[in-house]
Amino acid sequence: MSSAQQAPVIILVRPQLGENIGKAARAMLNFGLTELRLVAPRDGWPNPMAGPTSAGADIVIAGALVFDTLAEATADINHIYATTVRKRGVTKPVVTPEQAAKQIHRASGRSAILFGTERSGLAAEEVAMSREIITVPINPEFGSLNLAQAVILCAYEWSKFQSLASPTRTELEPSAPQGELDGMIDQLFAMLEDRGYFFPIERTAVTQGTLRNLLTKPAWNSGEVRTFRGILNVLKKGKGAGRIIEG
Amino acid sequence: MSSAQQAPVIILVRPQLGENIGKAARAMLNFGLTELRLVAPRDGWPNPMAGPTSAGADIVIAGALVFDTLAEATADINHIYATTVRKRGVTKPVVTPEQAAKQIHRASGRSAILFGTERSGLAAEEVAMSREIITVPINPEFGSLNLAQAVILCAYEWSKFQSLASPTRTELEPSAPQGELDGMIDQLFAMLEDRGYFFPIERTAVTQGTLRNLLTKPAWNSGEVRTFRGILNVLKKGKGAGRIIEG
Repeated sequence: MSSAQQAPVIILVRPQLGENIGKAARAMLNFGLTELRLVAPRDGWPNPMAGPTSAGADIVIAGALVFDTLAEATADINHIYATTVRKRGVTKPVVTPEQAAKQIHRASGRSAILFGTERSGLAAEEVAMSREIITVPINPEFGSLNLAQAVILCAYEWSKFQSLASPTRTELEPSAPQGELDGMIDQLFAMLEDRGYFFPIERTAVTQGTLRNLLTKPAWNSGEVRTFRGILNVLKKGKGAGRIIEG
Repeated sequence: MSSAQQAPVIILVRPQLGENIGKAARAMLNFGLTELRLVAPRDGWPNPMAGPTSAGADIVIAGALVFDTLAEATADINHIYATTVRKRGVTKPVVTPEQAAKQIHRASGRSAILFGTERSGLAAEEVAMSREIITVPINPEFGSLNLAQAVILCAYEWSKFQSLASPTRTELEPSAPQGELDGMIDQLFAMLEDRGYFFPIERTAVTQGTLRNLLTKPAWNSGEVRTFRGILNVLKKGKGAGRIIEG
């Protein structure tokens, strides 16, 4: 099954403000979701207020499908998840967005996530149509997720299971070979010895061990080792070295 | 270590609109984060526009601390994460919000997450102050996360680790607070300037950024910072300093 088929449909049930539909579209597309369905949007559809807040998620807005009833909107859906903020008196499994994303990714058939109207959420009979409930674990003393935020958390979790959305990790330069590091450390030790840093003399090995640990810790790459040696070269000259002719 | 100490500080750097500060506060409190710091907010602070969009997150708004500079805002922070949308040409580890949350949860010492100004994000020198970069893996063809959305994803990921029993680990020395690191870096910069290291002069900021990255990478602890400053003190004396009477 292709990832496009596994991607959940986002269904907004009786959304009120076009702005919020636009924000939901933006949230979706950020994480690669494109299929939006609207059930009985209060102000009709298309809604001119949706475009600006979608921040360019035209593909989602233009492709949005409108239905009169939730039954029609979900007729082709195999797995329906209802989002709720508060606990409901229904006996359905409750999952986190993360658990739902994992299930959706593995599911055979189409999945959809329902989001209720801005002020009051999904009605009991709408929740009743779903197989499972998604509840975002939230601060029990301050639960104030808006529609687009609820959408973005679900879309974000889904995207984690998509190889498309996997981060192209910035390849870090490998740390410098030990020989380069040793050269740098030897240079520093010579300078420090020159300044009488190693005192008392019998503690020299211990002190050098401490410094070696300190300078090994960064795992500097070759360029960084060169930069540090450049610093040492400059510092070696001494204060006002430019004005002193060295014999 | 209590969970309150582990909770990251959210630092908004040069935020423009009070509305967005309010939305960020709301996003934070939804997932139990309460410590907000503002660096040079464009319209000053307090900002009457922040309250309404915070949706009642008064505890966050009222407790927000304001700083003139990022250095001051991070002086007591041990682990700084910078959020960026695009790839940066810096050699720092890049982690997802989830990986960062895991690290923050286990870290010893205080963590902070930096978010840049709305339009352009963090400046290169601000990123340079951070130990690691958080990038939200996003649709490569449509990356349009706003400030509050970036905050909510980081806060949400952090909250997931809160319910888990925190392991009692053998703590490594925490890395030094940023203020100590800044002091060390300033000392080196002064010495290098004295030697004419920053040449040509117009490249100074770029060069300093490179050095800052280099010296931020080790995550040296307080003792290591002191040792390095001791080295700098000795090197400052110049070659054969012991035999020269300084005027």
